[in-house]
Amino acid sequence: MRIIVDAMGGDNAPEEIVRGALMAHEEQGIDITLVGREEDIRRVLNGKELPQGVEIVNATEVVEICDESATAFKQKKDSSLTVGLTLLRDGAGDAFISAGSTGALLSGATLVVKRVRGIRRAAMAPVIPTAAGRAVLCDCGANAECTVEYLLQFAYLGSFYAQRVLGVERPRVGLLNIGAEPSKGDTLRRETYERLTADAQAGHINFVGNVEAKEAMLGACDVIVADGFSGNILLKAVEGAGSFMGKRLKAMFLESMKTKLAALLVKSGMAEFKKLLDPSEVGGTAFIGITRPVIKAHGSSDARAIKNAVRQAVLVAKSGIADDIAANIDKMQPTHTEGNK
Amino acid sequence: MRIIVDAMGGDNAPEEIVRGALMAHEEQGIDITLVGREEDIRRVLNGKELPQGVEIVNATEVVEICDESATAFKQKKDSSLTVGLTLLRDGAGDAFISAGSTGALLSGATLVVKRVRGIRRAAMAPVIPTAAGRAVLCDCGANAECTVEYLLQFAYLGSFYAQRVLGVERPRVGLLNIGAEPSKGDTLRRETYERLTADAQAGHINFVGNVEAKEAMLGACDVIVADGFSGNILLKAVEGAGSFMGKRLKAMFLESMKTKLAALLVKSGMAEFKKLLDPSEVGGTAFIGITRPVIKAHGSSDARAIKNAVRQAVLVAKSGIADDIAANIDKMQPTHTEGNK
Repeated sequence: MRIIVDAMGGDNAPEEIVRGALMAHEEQGIDITLVGREEDIRRVLNGKELPQGVEIVNATEVVEICDESATAFKQKKDSSLTVGLTLLRDGAGDAFISAGSTGALLSGATLVVKRVRGIRRAAMAPVIPTAAGRAVLCDCGANAECTVEYLLQFAYLGSFYAQRVLGVERPRVGLLNIGAEPSKGDTLRRETYERLTADAQAGHINFVGNVEAKEAMLGACDVIVADGFSGNILLKAVEGAGSFMGKRLKAMFLESMKTKLAALLVKSGMAEFKKLLDPSEVGGTAFIGITRPVIKAHGSSDARAIKNAVRQAVLVAKSGIADDIAANIDKMQPTHTEGNK
Repeated sequence: MRIIVDAMGGDNAPEEIVRGALMAHEEQGIDITLVGREEDIRRVLNGKELPQGVEIVNATEVVEICDESATAFKQKKDSSLTVGLTLLRDGAGDAFISAGSTGALLSGATLVVKRVRGIRRAAMAPVIPTAAGRAVLCDCGANAECTVEYLLQFAYLGSFYAQRVLGVERPRVGLLNIGAEPSKGDTLRRETYERLTADAQAGHINFVGNVEAKEAMLGACDVIVADGFSGNILLKAVEGAGSFMGKRLKAMFLESMKTKLAALLVKSGMAEFKKLLDPSEVGGTAFIGITRPVIKAHGSSDARAIKNAVRQAVLVAKSGIADDIAANIDKMQPTHTEGNK
């Protein structure tokens, strides 16, 4: 197993990226290809030799956040992003990880590595914590404007992901909506509900109906199907609420000697609690619907987050999810619903 | 000041509603009109006399959750909802509160009490806690499908509300989006951004640009402008995350003798923390854009939530927000943007 890592993407590149990739190599025994400016990468190594199984592929350009995301990978042909994705496409590694621009990575993945035939849009599918464990949110921002067909495909993509990567035997697929009844939401939701209900009746998917954001967080389903706009709102609202509550709790524990003592008494529990809401714990978000595994790490990733993203990439690479998608692509085509919004 | 209360709406009607309204009367000296089945209301009073300033208006029907929300208020002309809204329209009270069906209340408010002339859609505008204090979310579910014109009006409605009800002198108005740059999001967001930017340049509104859900929760703005779909996702995601984290914290504190001691030491702080995320604290969500104050209380409201909803209703009734809207209605019309989604 070899994971290709964009050494130049993200707020803390290349230092933290290189360090995290080396940690993954050391702890998990994963072969690593670091793509980026060789001299910058070597500077992080500080004179040390590369461990066996770790290699550098030189790429002289860097895609910046200010670059036009739809075209950056083309305009900067020798960027770490483009070179890394090309290596992935050509089979020189089993997955590609980048903490750089999401938009550029998505465009590059779609146009260099390509979508599975029949898939209309790749989706970003983070695994989020819920009261019942965790759930796959699909899509969380790659596609702001969606059709019934996209949402239908996201439902299947998320379901395969939950099965193969999270190990849920028969994932409960819920449609993110603003009420439980079939009549709730907008036209897009009502039509998608209808189609997913038909697919559930045909035994293709375990569709459990509409789920509200609150119920989704409380664990009503294993797959949360959303357009990229509302999926992103869900994801970021939970992040924001977590951060806000974390701050308040911290202030509470710092208030007096008495509360500081309390903090000591629940130290390990609080550490667990913080982990729960820490995006670095999962490390990476998979783009699903692409022929080979592409993982987006958080822009602010530190070494630990990159290490965890490598672990996530290995899971996805081993899962065989692309084969599942290809084998079931017929079920994911619009038949009776053409009236998209 | 007299507040009209739908005694029959909500999961805990009429007991908790009547009790909460009486508490509000006792503690805040507010006159109350209880609308509903007189014998049911009297049963809650358990033989006690009505206090001075509290009266009952008999209404024999009840709008149920299963009733068609768009037409319930018309079909059940003698329902507590319809009778209460009619009293409000006719000036027999200063605000109306119901914990019953949101959809029926919205339809009733729009068609009995009416929107301010020139307002295209009434919005639900809950006040939500943020790291910086609080913010008005406008809309949070009344309008699942929106146009640029609606969002523009929500921006003004929310701004007046923050000014008049929350006392923010120059509310920072943010557009809920999936990125900060003007190009982010869908067509609806890009066009709304453009229009709000023009209005800010003209000095009409303090538009601070796009805000992501995370930044909104961290206090980036005083008014969060959203279509009802994504606004609802934001609201419910925060509720869900709060509930989920509350459960985890509780489990953490119950783990051992040591953690139970910690719980005792932070008891008052934790009570404050819980309050922060408790929808009963605010009590009610105003429908704005309606000529007179209509407040939706949470369906699961207990007496305390109803008491708080009365307080909220008084604030809205005193605010003069409907006059603000009427005086500024010209600014809220689409001029250069007709190209809605």
